[in-house]
Amino acid sequence: MEGKKVTLRDLAVKAGLSVNTVSRALKDKEDIAESTRKLIKDLAKEMGYVGNALAGSLRSGLTKTIAVIVSDVANPHFGIMVKDIEKSARKHNYTIFVIGTEDDHEMEERAIYTAIGKNVDGIIICPSQRSADTIRLLKKNGVPFVLIGRRFEEEPEFDYVICDDEKGGYLATKHLLDSGHERVLYLNGPSRISSARERLDGYKRAYREAGLPIREDLIIDVEPAAGDARRIVKQLLERKADFTGIFAFNDVIAWEAAYVLQKYGHRVPEDYAIIGFDNIQSRLFLPFQLSSISNSKGKMSKRAVDILLYKINHPDSTETYRDVIDTALILRDSTGRSASEQG
Amino acid sequence: MEGKKVTLRDLAVKAGLSVNTVSRALKDKEDIAESTRKLIKDLAKEMGYVGNALAGSLRSGLTKTIAVIVSDVANPHFGIMVKDIEKSARKHNYTIFVIGTEDDHEMEERAIYTAIGKNVDGIIICPSQRSADTIRLLKKNGVPFVLIGRRFEEEPEFDYVICDDEKGGYLATKHLLDSGHERVLYLNGPSRISSARERLDGYKRAYREAGLPIREDLIIDVEPAAGDARRIVKQLLERKADFTGIFAFNDVIAWEAAYVLQKYGHRVPEDYAIIGFDNIQSRLFLPFQLSSISNSKGKMSKRAVDILLYKINHPDSTETYRDVIDTALILRDSTGRSASEQG
Repeated sequence: MEGKKVTLRDLAVKAGLSVNTVSRALKDKEDIAESTRKLIKDLAKEMGYVGNALAGSLRSGLTKTIAVIVSDVANPHFGIMVKDIEKSARKHNYTIFVIGTEDDHEMEERAIYTAIGKNVDGIIICPSQRSADTIRLLKKNGVPFVLIGRRFEEEPEFDYVICDDEKGGYLATKHLLDSGHERVLYLNGPSRISSARERLDGYKRAYREAGLPIREDLIIDVEPAAGDARRIVKQLLERKADFTGIFAFNDVIAWEAAYVLQKYGHRVPEDYAIIGFDNIQSRLFLPFQLSSISNSKGKMSKRAVDILLYKINHPDSTETYRDVIDTALILRDSTGRSASEQG
Repeated sequence: MEGKKVTLRDLAVKAGLSVNTVSRALKDKEDIAESTRKLIKDLAKEMGYVGNALAGSLRSGLTKTIAVIVSDVANPHFGIMVKDIEKSARKHNYTIFVIGTEDDHEMEERAIYTAIGKNVDGIIICPSQRSADTIRLLKKNGVPFVLIGRRFEEEPEFDYVICDDEKGGYLATKHLLDSGHERVLYLNGPSRISSARERLDGYKRAYREAGLPIREDLIIDVEPAAGDARRIVKQLLERKADFTGIFAFNDVIAWEAAYVLQKYGHRVPEDYAIIGFDNIQSRLFLPFQLSSISNSKGKMSKRAVDILLYKINHPDSTETYRDVIDTALILRDSTGRSASEQG
């Protein structure tokens, strides 16, 4: 049998039974004697019969698979989120697979084409936001989907689950201002991304509330993939830019900033206080205690799966979901406060 | 058109042409006038026609997709490897998707069933090694595959690309011994995993060469997923176990060990020297300079893709590939040597 996909027919021939009998036995139909069912199942195992997810799907209409499309698979934030999504999906007997886009338009388009071509039942996607066209493609093809982490304000029909980015930006900046850091560098994500714009809104609110002038030269866009932040922080240090606090769009950028500060002989938090976003430390235990904004990945992921499954199972539903999960400030050593046993 | 998958027939009706003409136009066949081809392609774009990867595959026999199955998507080592595999695959016009197994037998089996059901052309898998049965399933079904990072010594027909784990374990341990750490705690992976066994062989070789006795109580198996190492290192510190050097099966375990040492007020490298494995720091810039063993993820990934594509395109080939990529010691602050600008 080796070397070719094992078929129902192969099983039937080997067992000396009809394809129909074998098929019904594998489905545990009671009109087939229990001993026959056991025999067929053992044979299927022995011969390595896998079935055909697609053939199954043509009957039930569902493939029990979800595609998860994220921007950067090497960012532990997404790795953890994918695990959480997988965990929620598994409870409903769903398998997920992940495609990365590196926030690139063409790769995102390919990812969506691949997912649709693989007949997934639905898609959870963190969109690159380089264009809404890629997402409209899903709408046009009637593929259930939920955005996670980012939203299109101008597309009220796209369901999403995000965290309260504005509040997160506000809490982080307010904490730095309250701790005496009046000049807070904000290493932001690219402004095409909704979460970057909203975290910036929060940053500005904190400044306004404190009655301090916003310094536009301290607000800098960084590509979220690894590497770009290093270059920018180096430049700022070399031209002795005037700041003592740093708020970063995500933990990966915060780590890079701290990495460069170390290289230049500066100490955290003595010389610079740093707060990131994503709270990766709660799941990946690093020997650098970074303060951060928790966005409750577990809750976001579970909610995204629940909404998606509802939409899969109620294709005619016209409800729209716009969920915003709360954010919270988690203080650790990088801002000079070793907050109890927060981890 | 919204709400249902856009079909060739939809396009044909809208264009007032036959399905055959539309299909040939999309394939850029020269018997269709260029103006018509352009018109059809524009219409396809406007209507959101995605085609059907499977329908395509029934004709060419290939779906141009590869499944990558890894143990832990939240470990940046695998995230980076997946990115490297994607990059190599994309050059050959292949899309990859990723399924995580958490080194769990049942999840691995589901991952393989899903991949086969989705008609991928081939699979790159880091096996959980809880059983070779899951991998034999691929052989039985004639699905091309390559193991990455781990191998089954008792299954000579399974192709693999691994790194020189024995040498890596040797280099790390020898460096610690040479630096005066005669008691090196080895936080190893579970012994069912080939790389854990082989790194341990290297650890033992270094001890033998140094003429020092191997202390079996300093060799401890850890589950590679996040969390387990913390518990173990805490216990060792609390019962004042006698060691000053630590070699960890991977960087995530090394980070956790350093994290616990910090919590207990110990300094790295002054009190304890630590070396990890995977060299994640070369791609993710953390403010903790961990010495590590480089396993050339880029090379491993490229090689795995090349072998897999060869097998996909030469289904009758009987060659077996057993590739071992070289490993190297990368020294950073965690062993007390700030090795130049290694990063």
